[in-house]
Amino acid sequence: MLDKKSIYEYEGINSTYHDADIVICGVPFDGTCSNRPGTRFGPDGIRAEIDGLETYSPYQDEDMIDYNYVDVGNIEIPIGSTSKTMGCIHENIKSILEDNKKIITLGGEHLISYPIVKAFAEKYSNLHVVHLDAHADLRSDYLEEKLSHATVMRRIYETLDKGYIFQYGIRSGTKEEFQFAGEYTKLQAFNLNGIEKVKSLVGNDPVYLSIDLDVLDPSIFPGTGTPEPGGIDFNELINGIISLKDVNIVGADIVELSPHYDISGVSNIVAAKILREVAIIMSRREEH
Amino acid sequence: MLDKKSIYEYEGINSTYHDADIVICGVPFDGTCSNRPGTRFGPDGIRAEIDGLETYSPYQDEDMIDYNYVDVGNIEIPIGSTSKTMGCIHENIKSILEDNKKIITLGGEHLISYPIVKAFAEKYSNLHVVHLDAHADLRSDYLEEKLSHATVMRRIYETLDKGYIFQYGIRSGTKEEFQFAGEYTKLQAFNLNGIEKVKSLVGNDPVYLSIDLDVLDPSIFPGTGTPEPGGIDFNELINGIISLKDVNIVGADIVELSPHYDISGVSNIVAAKILREVAIIMSRREEH
Amino acid sequence: MLDKKSIYEYEGINSTYHDADIVICGVPFDGTCSNRPGTRFGPDGIRAEIDGLETYSPYQDEDMIDYNYVDVGNIEIPIGSTSKTMGCIHENIKSILEDNKKIITLGGEHLISYPIVKAFAEKYSNLHVVHLDAHADLRSDYLEEKLSHATVMRRIYETLDKGYIFQYGIRSGTKEEFQFAGEYTKLQAFNLNGIEKVKSLVGNDPVYLSIDLDVLDPSIFPGTGTPEPGGIDFNELINGIISLKDVNIVGADIVELSPHYDISGVSNIVAAKILREVAIIMSRREEH
Amino acid sequence: MLDKKSIYEYEGINSTYHDADIVICGVPFDGTCSNRPGTRFGPDGIRAEIDGLETYSPYQDEDMIDYNYVDVGNIEIPIGSTSKTMGCIHENIKSILEDNKKIITLGGEHLISYPIVKAFAEKYSNLHVVHLDAHADLRSDYLEEKLSHATVMRRIYETLDKGYIFQYGIRSGTKEEFQFAGEYTKLQAFNLNGIEKVKSLVGNDPVYLSIDLDVLDPSIFPGTGTPEPGGIDFNELINGIISLKDVNIVGADIVELSPHYDISGVSNIVAAKILREVAIIMSRREEH
Amino acid sequence: MLDKKSIYEYEGINSTYHDADIVICGVPFDGTCSNRPGTRFGPDGIRAEIDGLETYSPYQDEDMIDYNYVDVGNIEIPIGSTSKTMGCIHENIKSILEDNKKIITLGGEHLISYPIVKAFAEKYSNLHVVHLDAHADLRSDYLEEKLSHATVMRRIYETLDKGYIFQYGIRSGTKEEFQFAGEYTKLQAFNLNGIEKVKSLVGNDPVYLSIDLDVLDPSIFPGTGTPEPGGIDFNELINGIISLKDVNIVGADIVELSPHYDISGVSNIVAAKILREVAIIMSRREEH
Amino acid sequence: MLDKKSIYEYEGINSTYHDADIVICGVPFDGTCSNRPGTRFGPDGIRAEIDGLETYSPYQDEDMIDYNYVDVGNIEIPIGSTSKTMGCIHENIKSILEDNKKIITLGGEHLISYPIVKAFAEKYSNLHVVHLDAHADLRSDYLEEKLSHATVMRRIYETLDKGYIFQYGIRSGTKEEFQFAGEYTKLQAFNLNGIEKVKSLVGNDPVYLSIDLDVLDPSIFPGTGTPEPGGIDFNELINGIISLKDVNIVGADIVELSPHYDISGVSNIVAAKILREVAIIMSRREEH
Repeated sequence: MLDKKSIYEYEGINSTYHDADIVICGVPFDGTCSNRPGTRFGPDGIRAEIDGLETYSPYQDEDMIDYNYVDVGNIEIPIGSTSKTMGCIHENIKSILEDNKKIITLGGEHLISYPIVKAFAEKYSNLHVVHLDAHADLRSDYLEEKLSHATVMRRIYETLDKGYIFQYGIRSGTKEEFQFAGEYTKLQAFNLNGIEKVKSLVGNDPVYLSIDLDVLDPSIFPGTGTPEPGGIDFNELINGIISLKDVNIVGADIVELSPHYDISGVSNIVAAKILREVAIIMSRREEH
Repeated sequence: MLDKKSIYEYEGINSTYHDADIVICGVPFDGTCSNRPGTRFGPDGIRAEIDGLETYSPYQDEDMIDYNYVDVGNIEIPIGSTSKTMGCIHENIKSILEDNKKIITLGGEHLISYPIVKAFAEKYSNLHVVHLDAHADLRSDYLEEKLSHATVMRRIYETLDKGYIFQYGIRSGTKEEFQFAGEYTKLQAFNLNGIEKVKSLVGNDPVYLSIDLDVLDPSIFPGTGTPEPGGIDFNELINGIISLKDVNIVGADIVELSPHYDISGVSNIVAAKILREVAIIMSRREEH
Repeated sequence: MLDKKSIYEYEGINSTYHDADIVICGVPFDGTCSNRPGTRFGPDGIRAEIDGLETYSPYQDEDMIDYNYVDVGNIEIPIGSTSKTMGCIHENIKSILEDNKKIITLGGEHLISYPIVKAFAEKYSNLHVVHLDAHADLRSDYLEEKLSHATVMRRIYETLDKGYIFQYGIRSGTKEEFQFAGEYTKLQAFNLNGIEKVKSLVGNDPVYLSIDLDVLDPSIFPGTGTPEPGGIDFNELINGIISLKDVNIVGADIVELSPHYDISGVSNIVAAKILREVAIIMSRREEH
Repeated sequence: MLDKKSIYEYEGINSTYHDADIVICGVPFDGTCSNRPGTRFGPDGIRAEIDGLETYSPYQDEDMIDYNYVDVGNIEIPIGSTSKTMGCIHENIKSILEDNKKIITLGGEHLISYPIVKAFAEKYSNLHVVHLDAHADLRSDYLEEKLSHATVMRRIYETLDKGYIFQYGIRSGTKEEFQFAGEYTKLQAFNLNGIEKVKSLVGNDPVYLSIDLDVLDPSIFPGTGTPEPGGIDFNELINGIISLKDVNIVGADIVELSPHYDISGVSNIVAAKILREVAIIMSRREEH
Repeated sequence: MLDKKSIYEYEGINSTYHDADIVICGVPFDGTCSNRPGTRFGPDGIRAEIDGLETYSPYQDEDMIDYNYVDVGNIEIPIGSTSKTMGCIHENIKSILEDNKKIITLGGEHLISYPIVKAFAEKYSNLHVVHLDAHADLRSDYLEEKLSHATVMRRIYETLDKGYIFQYGIRSGTKEEFQFAGEYTKLQAFNLNGIEKVKSLVGNDPVYLSIDLDVLDPSIFPGTGTPEPGGIDFNELINGIISLKDVNIVGADIVELSPHYDISGVSNIVAAKILREVAIIMSRREEH
Repeated sequence: MLDKKSIYEYEGINSTYHDADIVICGVPFDGTCSNRPGTRFGPDGIRAEIDGLETYSPYQDEDMIDYNYVDVGNIEIPIGSTSKTMGCIHENIKSILEDNKKIITLGGEHLISYPIVKAFAEKYSNLHVVHLDAHADLRSDYLEEKLSHATVMRRIYETLDKGYIFQYGIRSGTKEEFQFAGEYTKLQAFNLNGIEKVKSLVGNDPVYLSIDLDVLDPSIFPGTGTPEPGGIDFNELINGIISLKDVNIVGADIVELSPHYDISGVSNIVAAKILREVAIIMSRREEH
C-alpha cells in the first residue's frame, strides 16, 4: 500500500497528505499493452518535467502554489499478473477515497482506469465518466482477454450504475465499437466538439475524467504506444479541459505516456502541462 | 515481372490477384533522390503498420474487409540505372492494366509516377492527374538530368494528351516552376482549397491521383527526404482525398515515405492510413 | 572582431560586405541556458540547410537573388564569461551599424538580443522592439543573475528610450512577469493576433524584430532548449512576419535553435525558411 | 497452437516442417520484464535481418543452404497472464518435441526458457543446460514473484534431474546468487573461459543452450532491456558457440533482444548472425 | 552551500551525512565546454541508474551495503560566470573536507576538478593526482582562457606542491602538451599500463583520482562531449581502478558524462558502475 | 571537373593545389547501394569533424601541419546513372594524377574505388591493392549488375595487370567469393594479421590502399550501410595502417561512411582520424 507520505516534492506540489485536497499517484503498469510497451515509465516521465514547469497557468490565470497537492509516488505493481494488479490498484485508490481526497492518477496503460473507476463508482453511485481518447476502447474482449487496454471503457460501462460515458476525440475502432457507442455511450468522433455542454448534462453529479493522451495528434505527442494520426492539438485539449471547470470532477487519470518513444522529451512536457491544468480545474471548483 | 500472386496478406488486404479489384504494389526506387535517400524502404514501412491498423474507417464509415484488395509485393528494381528502372516499372504497370485492375503504387521516390502515368495514359487518352505535393516538380531538367524527382510533373505534363494536371499544396519551387504552372497546370499553392471541385471539372474522365506525402507538414510526417515546413495537416489530407470520392480514380500512388528519418515510426502509420482511405474511395465508386 | 569579408556563400546570399544591404552573422553563445544547452550550434544548423532551400518565396512572390545579402560568419565568443561576451557582441554589432547596414543575427540563446538591441538603441533613440516568443523573458533576475535568457526582455525594456516592446505568442512565465507585461509592454498571449497593427502604431520608426523560435509549437520545432507545447504553427509565424512588411525593420534576430535536439533535422529547415522570409521583408521595404 | 507450416521463408531457412531437422519459432513475451520492456519485438527483429545475411558462415566454413530449417512463426501469447503464458509455451514446445525435432526459440524475455526447458527435461532425463548471460538469474524470487526473468535459472535448476547448469559470462547479481552458484551450478564469471571443456564433462548427454544476448557488451548489443557494461565481444561469443560443436545440443534459445532500444539496427544483425552459427552447429553434429 | 543532509537515497547509498565516510555530490557545470555541452545533466544521469544497479560488485566481491555513503545532491552553480563557479565549488568542497570526509564528485565538465583539487591540496600538502583521460588537458590556455576543460591538468599542476600527476589513457593533445607531459608529469599514452605501480610510488601519501570518462572508448561510452575513438574498454577501466585498492585515495571525481548524447542510456549505466567500484575501493582501505 | 582550387580549409589541410603533395577529394556517390543508402553524405561527415580534430598524431608522433594537403571538394556526380558516374570519377582522378599528386578519396560507396583504381592502374602498370573490408566484394555480378559495391574488388582484379590484391578483415561473403579469393587474391579473414608483411612482398612497387570502414566493428562504427558484427577495433585499424608506413602508397580511399545512421556522431570522428593517420603515412614516406 502507498504510505501516504509525500515522497516527491516540487514547487507547486508540496503539501502533506493530510493537508492535500488532491492526491497525485503513479500507476506504472503496462502489462496488457498489445503494441509498443513502456507506459510503466510514464509517471516518472511526467515528474522529470514538473520542476522545470511554471506553476502559473496563463490559460486559467491561476497558480498551483495557491492550492494543496501531494504526490505520494507510485503504487507498486505485482509483475506478471493482470488480475492481481487490478486488485492492488483498486485497494489503494479505495483507501485514498476513504480519506476524502480527490485523486489524479498518472499511467501507465489505460486499463488502470478500470479498477480506479470501480473504486470511485463504489463511493459515488451517480458517477459519470468523461473519456478523451483516440480509441473507443469498447471491445467486449481483445484476443480473448476481458481485461485489456482495448476493452477498458466496456468494462467501465458495465461498472457504472446510472452514469453516462461521454467520449471525445475517438478516431479509431472496429465497426462494432462505433455501433456499441451509438447505442450506449455519448461519442463525439475526431474532436472535442460539445464538451462544454457536459456541465449542463450532469449538473453537480460527480465526474471522473479519463485522459488517454493519444487523443492528441502524434506530431505533438509521439511518446505513446499506439499513435493515431489525425488527433487534436494541444490547445484544443487544454481548452476542452478548461471548459469542464464548473463540473464536479472528483477523480482523473492521465494515461498512455510512453517516454522512450519520444527522444525529444516533448511528450513528457505535454503530459506535465496537462497535469497542471487538470489539477487547477479540480481545485478551482473547490472554491465555489 | 511481378508474379501476380498475393504475397503479403493482412486483415483487409487478402484477396487473390484474380478476384481483386485493386492491386497494390511497391516500387522501392530512390535512385534520383538529390537529398536524403531511403524511400526504397517506403513500401515495407507501410506494410509494417498495416496489420496494426483497423480496417474500418470512421472517416468514411466503410470497412476494407468489404472490398477486394491484393498486395503483389514489390517490383524488382535494377540497381544503378534510372532508364532501365523506368522501363521496368512501365512494363509491370502496363501488364496489370491489361488485366483491367485499378492500381495503387507505394513509393519509392516521386519519379516512379512518370512511367506509371505513361502506362495509364496509353490506356486512357483522356487521363487527368491530381497531384498533392509540397514541391511543384515542374523543372525542365535538374542538374542537367531530364529524369528526376524534381522534373516528374513536367515529364507527366508532356505525356498527357487532353488531360489536366491539378496541383495542390505546393509551397516550394523556383520562380520558373510557378510561372510554368501559371500557364500550363492548375496549381493551388499551400493547401487543398478547391479540390472538391475536381469532380465537376473532369466528370467521368479517368483520373490518376499522385500523393507525395511531403505535402503533409513535417511535424506529422518527418519521414521523408525533403521535408518542407508549412504543410497541411493529416485531417486536411484525409478530407481532400475523401472529397474525390465520386471521381473516377483508376490509379494512385503514395510516394516519398523514407522510414529511417522518423524513428518514432509515426510516418509509417500516417502512410498506412492514407493507403486505407485511398483504397476505400477507389472501391466505393465501384458501387455506384 | 568580424572581418567583414563574406566567408560563407550560398545561392541567394553571395554579395560582398561592401555591397550588401543586409549583413547576416551568427552568435554561437549559450552560456546562461538553464535547461538543455546547445544553441551554440544554431548558426551552423541554419547554414547547413540554406543551400538546399529555394531562394524563391512563394509566400511573398520574391526571390533572394534579387537582393544583396552577405554572411560574415560567427562572432567569436570568449568562453566562460557572460559579461565579456556581452561586450564582445555589442562591439561587433556597433561596428556593423556604423557601416549603415541592416543586420540579421542568428543565435545562440536569447540573451544575445540584449547587447544587440543596446547597440541599435544607441543609434536609434526611437527604436521599438517586436518580440515573438513562448516565454515572457521579463524576470527581474533569474537564479540571482541579472543577465539571463529569462531576463532579456526586462533588460531590453530598461535600455529602450521611447520605444515600445510588442510581445506575441507568450504562453509561459510567472504571474509576476505577466503582471509586469500588463503594465509596461504590449503583450498578446498565445498567438500573433494583432501583429498586423504594429505598422499603424509605430509609423516609420525603426523597429527591431526578435524571433525566439520556441514561439513555434514543439511539434514543428523540437530543436530548442525549452520547448513549450501550445505554440503557433509555421504558417502563422510566416504570415505574422509578412504582415510586418511595411514596418521599418532595421535589425532582427532568430534565436534558440538547438539542432542536436531534433534528429530529424526539420528544425534547421524551419529556421532557414524563417531567415529567408525575414531577409526578404527587410529588403523589400528598401524599395519603397 | 503453432500450425507447423512454414510461414516465413528466407534463403537458407526454407524447408517444410516435415523435412526440417531444426524448427525455429518465436516467443514474443516480455511480461515479467522489470526494466525496459520490448523483447516482444525480438523475433521479428531477427527476421528483419535474416534475408540480408549471407547463408555462408566463414567462421565454420559451412552454409545454411546445406541443412534443413523451418521457421514456423511465433507462439501466440495470452496477454496479461504469466502463468497461462508458461503453460502455452510448454505445450507448444512439447508438441514439436514429440515430432522429434530440434528447436531454436527466439525470445522474448529469458523467463521463456523455463517452460521450454521443462518440456525438454520431460523428454530427456539427463538434460544439461549451458547458460550464457550477464546475469545469474538465480534468485529464489523477485519482488515476491517466483516466475521472473531474474529467477529463471533457479526454476530451471529445480526442474533438472541429473543434469548440470553451466553458466558463463555472469557479471551481475546479488551476493546470494553468486553464493548459490558456488554451491549448485558451475559458474564462470565475466567470460566464457572453459566453455570448450563442456564436451568432456557431458559426453553425449543432451544439452540445452540458453543464450541471453546481454552476455555481450552493450557496445555491440545495446538493444536489450538491462544492458550490463563489461560484457564479452562478438567474436568471443561466436567462438564459444563453435567450441560446443561436438556437444549434443538438442535445443537452444536466443533471448532478450529488444530492437527498439537500438536505433542503429545493429543488435538485430548480431542476433541474426548468432542464430546462423547456432543453427549450423546444431546441424553439423547431425552428420557425425 | 550544500545542506549536508542526505537528499537522495538508494539501496547502498543511504547513510546520513554525519555517519557517512564518503560523501557523494554532483557538480552540474559545463560552462567552458568548447564542443558539445550537456555534462550539466551528468550527476542526474548517474542517479537515474543507481537504483537499478546491484549493490554487490562481483569484481571485488564486496557490497556497498556494508559501507556508509551519503549523496548530498548537487552544488548549485551560478550560471554564466566561470570564476564565481570556481569559488563556489572550492568553498563547498572545503567545507566537506573540514568535516573529515572523503568525497566523490560527479561532473559536470572536467574543469571542476581544479577548484576541488585546490581544496584537497590545501588540506594535504603531499597530495598526488591520478588522472585517467583521453585528453592531456595540459594546455597553458585555450582560446586565450586560462580556466578551461582543456587546461585543467595544467592548472592542477601549478597547484600541487610536492605531489606527482600520473596520467593514463591519453590519446589526444597538441605536440606541446605531450612535450610538457614528458617533462613534468608521468604520462602513459593510450592505456592504463603501469597503473598498478602507483602504490609503490606514492606509499601512504594521499591521492586524488580524477576519471574523465572519455578515457573509455566511445563504443561503450558515447555519452560525452568530445568522444575520442581508440579508448580503453570497460574492463580495463574497472581493473585499473581496482589495482589502486591499497592507495590512500582521499577524493575522486567522475566527469564528462553528457547523457543526452547517448540515447541508449548505456553511458549512464557505465558511469554508475564506475561510481560503485570507486566507492568500494575508497571504503575498503578504511578497513586496513 | 574539379577546379583544383582549395575550397575547404582547416588547420592542417590548408595548402594550395599547386603546393600540395596529397590531394583530398570527396565522391558523394551511393547509387548501387543495395541496403541502407546515405554514403553520399560521407565526405561532408568527415569534414564536419576535421576542424575539431588535433592535427598531431600521438600514434605516429607526427603533425599534419608539417605536410602539404589540399581538399579540393567533391567530384560532382551525375545523378541516376552508374556508368556516367564511373566515367566522371575516372576522368577527374586521371587529371589529378597527371599533375603528379597522391590522392586520398573520401566515399561514397565502395564502387567508386573501381574507376579510381582504373586511373591509377593506367599510370602504374605494377600497381598493387591493399583492401581492408568486412566484405569480400568479389562477386562476378550482383543482382545481374556488373557494377556494384558487391563486385568492386572483382572488377579491380580484372583491371590490375601484374599487381596483387591483399585483402584483410573479411568476414562476410558467399562461399564462391571465399573460393575465388583462395585462388586469386591474398585474403586474411576476420583481422589484419600479416599486414606488416606487405612491404616485403611489394618492395617499392606503387600501392593503392582501399579502406572500407565497415572493416571496423559496428560498435565503434555504426554509421555505415551494411554493418557486420565481429569487426576489428579502432586501434587494430590504426596499427594496421601505420604498419604500412614504408610502403609506397600512391593513392587511398576511405569509403562507406553513412553519417545519418550514427546519431552519436562518433562514426564521423572515427573516419576523420583514419584520414589523419593515412595522410601522415603517405606523407612520411616522401621524406625517406
